[in-house]
Amino acid sequence: MTGRTTAITGIGELTTNDPGLGLVRDAVVVLQGDRIVWVGHAPVAPAADSVVDVGGRAVLPGWVDSHTHLVFAGDRTAEFEARMAGEPYRAGGIATTVEATRAATDDDLETTLVRHVGEAVRQGTTYLETKTGYGLTVADEVRAARIAARHADEVTYLGAHLVPPGADEESYVDLVCGDMLEAVAPHAGWADVFCERGAFGEAQAERIVRAARARGLGVRVHGNQLGHGPGVQVAVRNGAASVDHCTYLSDEDVEALAGSDTVATLLPACDLSTRQPPAPARRLLDAGATVALASNANPGSSYTTSMAFCVAIAVLQMGMTVREAVWAATAGGARALRRHPADARAGQTGDGAVGVVRAGARADLHVLDAPSATHLAYRPGVPLTWAVWRAGTRVV
Amino acid sequence: MTGRTTAITGIGELTTNDPGLGLVRDAVVVLQGDRIVWVGHAPVAPAADSVVDVGGRAVLPGWVDSHTHLVFAGDRTAEFEARMAGEPYRAGGIATTVEATRAATDDDLETTLVRHVGEAVRQGTTYLETKTGYGLTVADEVRAARIAARHADEVTYLGAHLVPPGADEESYVDLVCGDMLEAVAPHAGWADVFCERGAFGEAQAERIVRAARARGLGVRVHGNQLGHGPGVQVAVRNGAASVDHCTYLSDEDVEALAGSDTVATLLPACDLSTRQPPAPARRLLDAGATVALASNANPGSSYTTSMAFCVAIAVLQMGMTVREAVWAATAGGARALRRHPADARAGQTGDGAVGVVRAGARADLHVLDAPSATHLAYRPGVPLTWAVWRAGTRVV
Ligand SMILES: [Zn+2]
Ligand SMILES: [Zn+2]
Repeated sequence: MTGRTTAITGIGELTTNDPGLGLVRDAVVVLQGDRIVWVGHAPVAPAADSVVDVGGRAVLPGWVDSHTHLVFAGDRTAEFEARMAGEPYRAGGIATTVEATRAATDDDLETTLVRHVGEAVRQGTTYLETKTGYGLTVADEVRAARIAARHADEVTYLGAHLVPPGADEESYVDLVCGDMLEAVAPHAGWADVFCERGAFGEAQAERIVRAARARGLGVRVHGNQLGHGPGVQVAVRNGAASVDHCTYLSDEDVEALAGSDTVATLLPACDLSTRQPPAPARRLLDAGATVALASNANPGSSYTTSMAFCVAIAVLQMGMTVREAVWAATAGGARALRRHPADARAGQTGDGAVGVVRAGARADLHVLDAPSATHLAYRPGVPLTWAVWRAGTRVV
Repeated sequence: MTGRTTAITGIGELTTNDPGLGLVRDAVVVLQGDRIVWVGHAPVAPAADSVVDVGGRAVLPGWVDSHTHLVFAGDRTAEFEARMAGEPYRAGGIATTVEATRAATDDDLETTLVRHVGEAVRQGTTYLETKTGYGLTVADEVRAARIAARHADEVTYLGAHLVPPGADEESYVDLVCGDMLEAVAPHAGWADVFCERGAFGEAQAERIVRAARARGLGVRVHGNQLGHGPGVQVAVRNGAASVDHCTYLSDEDVEALAGSDTVATLLPACDLSTRQPPAPARRLLDAGATVALASNANPGSSYTTSMAFCVAIAVLQMGMTVREAVWAATAGGARALRRHPADARAGQTGDGAVGVVRAGARADLHVLDAPSATHLAYRPGVPLTWAVWRAGTRVV
């Protein structure tokens, strides 16, 4: 690694997510290029070419938002208002966004995506996954994946979001596993399926994740959102990196997750925005499952880009401790995307890993206008983002 | 009214809280000095000396935060962490802040207050009440009230926050109703009492509110926060402007509130931050009670200045509609402070009223970076404040 170094000094509390370092008081982090090259206590820090003193503030890894749907067009404010006036959430609302997305120009879709990614970054998100799933034709899904790949760190193919209105169910699953997969795969690292009543059943979901794995994509599953169902079991059985939502879990589901490498990705803003019960975070953690937190940013069930809000709700309403929630929204998201140092993909040295602050990791840092990360839950709703480095560049 | 006029134009959606105007699309508001002088539809708007085009954004009255405790010193992060790890909330934690506040210099207290008021204003709060209550000696309560009066719109005397450690209960109530009241009254418009197990009982609370009324102060009550209790009945019986918390209400309490002029002020961030159940907003609204929302900003039970967070939680978790929650956080707060056009204090013309957008009201406006106020709940946690006018001056 060559080039100028920058030392971030005056860190009152540094959350590293590194078991060897833990929480460091009076810390320094040195960046070079897009990487972190040194982390430790101030008195033994090396010299650097330039210095940014953060005045005793708390620093943590940038948020890793491992679940968003940000290639979309159209407006669902009226549907949200109706839900708040008492109507239940229905997966069918997705069709509204599909219609608007198909009708939108490439420029419209890209402008909307860029606006939301920018909004997320200004709130401390430094690594972001986003999905297709509002196209649901070969051409529209390819278009969504291409646009996503220009602005998101990870792209997920979600042709299996919903059977498009008017389509035959089995023919559509054939398409998702066949021509559509072939066409989208070059632009995506992941495939996902919405395994839920009203969307795709167990056998269909299984076919889709197997086809995607065979095509070389990593897989993830939307499951157990609106009721008990087979989502978790399909995910674990097929080595999915994550199963997302997990609002309704049987004891068998919790056990399966705890005994596997599949991350349980919880979406607190979505549970709240659909007036569902909160996902059983404590049961999962107490059983030993790996938990991630993500925004599920989308115009239907969870229209927020605020990972800080998700952390606050996870602590205040779901019984997670601040440390657990912060880990889940950074390192947990990294595990769900297989970009954590513990994942083979990132290599044993943690080279280019995200969600952690250690030498070799990507230089993604979030500085809070607060003395500790606890303030994320202690001061809910207060915008605390003070500075952000993303891949070594200061963006806030 | 003389002087230059400013027209705010391009308002996509204007929440007026005025029954005659309602929600206005394509609206214009004209300001002059610290007042609103014209409100209506763009095509019939008068000319003005200058124009600010808000580009189709939503505008609402600035937040009226009718319940905060911002004259304090010290840190209670560790207590918050312990609570999130399973310890229950206890009123006794207040004593920690009392000790630190007594030890602080005037400058320290004022700096902390100014920082928090500024933080609130940057998030759209334009009218703010704050309380004493961390002094609990004559000198310390007077000091708190003097400092509060320099920066808050309304000051409440809360000598009856807690019996200070080591003090005799009955002698302390004598002091609160006697010398302390006499000394603080010139600096405060309101008196308040924490009527709760562990704080002040029914007879003590009754004595305190009667003494305050006799001394010419308006009264309010902290009640029904940690369990069922006499707070609501004491408040209604004594013509209190509001009873705040209302987390545990009997049917008789709801009925008493619905049949009175006493506002039920709910504190959603406090309920969440103490892991209490949400206050029964729907029962109150359905019975016809007047509901306000406030932050209860304080370092113990609710350390947020974000009224947008309170509105989002009131909608997502407490079953209020967006319109009800926005009204409660603006006009509702104004009613709780008797500054609404419906209150005698503001006069029939609404002169200088807050919480509403109409001619004669104070020029307190909040512009959202969103097309409608619904986005406050639809996009929880996302900082949406785009511009703020406070008493006619643009502060954001
Ligand atoms: Zn999703
Ligand atoms: Zn209070």
